[in-house]
Amino acid sequence: MALTQELVACGALRFGTFTLTSGKTSSYYVDIKAASSRPRILKAMAQELRPKVGDAEVLAGVELGAVPILVALALETGLPYAIIRKQAKAHGTGKRVEGADVKGKRVLLVEDVTTTGKSVLDAVQVLRAEGADVDRVETVVDRGEGASEALGQHRVRLGALVSAPELLSLSRGTTR
Amino acid sequence: MALTQELVACGALRFGTFTLTSGKTSSYYVDIKAASSRPRILKAMAQELRPKVGDAEVLAGVELGAVPILVALALETGLPYAIIRKQAKAHGTGKRVEGADVKGKRVLLVEDVTTTGKSVLDAVQVLRAEGADVDRVETVVDRGEGASEALGQHRVRLGALVSAPELLSLSRGTTR
Repeated sequence: MALTQELVACGALRFGTFTLTSGKTSSYYVDIKAASSRPRILKAMAQELRPKVGDAEVLAGVELGAVPILVALALETGLPYAIIRKQAKAHGTGKRVEGADVKGKRVLLVEDVTTTGKSVLDAVQVLRAEGADVDRVETVVDRGEGASEALGQHRVRLGALVSAPELLSLSRGTTR
Repeated sequence: MALTQELVACGALRFGTFTLTSGKTSSYYVDIKAASSRPRILKAMAQELRPKVGDAEVLAGVELGAVPILVALALETGLPYAIIRKQAKAHGTGKRVEGADVKGKRVLLVEDVTTTGKSVLDAVQVLRAEGADVDRVETVVDRGEGASEALGQHRVRLGALVSAPELLSLSRGTTR
């Protein structure tokens, strides 16, 4: 089954009134954890992301949603990975990038769902401040609400396995 | 290379003065992220954990350290997994268990490093409150500072791939 169909079939697409992390209200929600917590679908995501890794030397992703996808892709490709914390821990080293060293490395940023792109753009800036070379983000689902444009302004290209319109149209076709 | 040797070789064992999450001071620190961010070592952890899964139906682990190990083991076994948040998110559903449904399921809790066992014991209680059947924790490294006893008092058995004395003696043998 194609990934788009898998996402619909496992109930990752939900309808109602939802407040997104960005503060916006939406009539649908992509519950990516409903999909990524199933190893078969998680593996399918990693396999579809694999050809997009290109010449990246290190993978990176923001806690917590992107981490399962990041880990699955690391296991699929053999590439080391770094996790970007949303905020530095109050105690400890205060580092926002943990795991693999990103300095001077070509880094591919992996995300679960992009909306406005605020969260990944912040991650790009954290990675660049650490000396990483990052100009691409690959997301599983792009909701198409500005992420591509926002990233483009910072010379970052966004790729998506699935777009929200595709997901919505497939859902209409199969469940209504 | 055996996992114990891998951990020493990749620099996951560090000497100095460290304040642990438990508040205790220690002369060594197990930087498990230095190991788990390398896919080859992460895969070795998952392969060594696999025979210990037994009749578990769902895997679970506490954010963030255990998540890569949890995901690798889920991919290795095909079992779904749940992530236990350290604290419920301020906004959102307030749920502390995310991902797979644990109610009425035999759950194996996976951890990266155990010291006093406080964090995993809290996770056991959260899982039991959700109706999960949990009586085993499998950790990669047990520091041997009370976790086994603390868990035992709550009818939970602790298994470890590596014990701190093993790690320390191997380190002495190879690097000193």
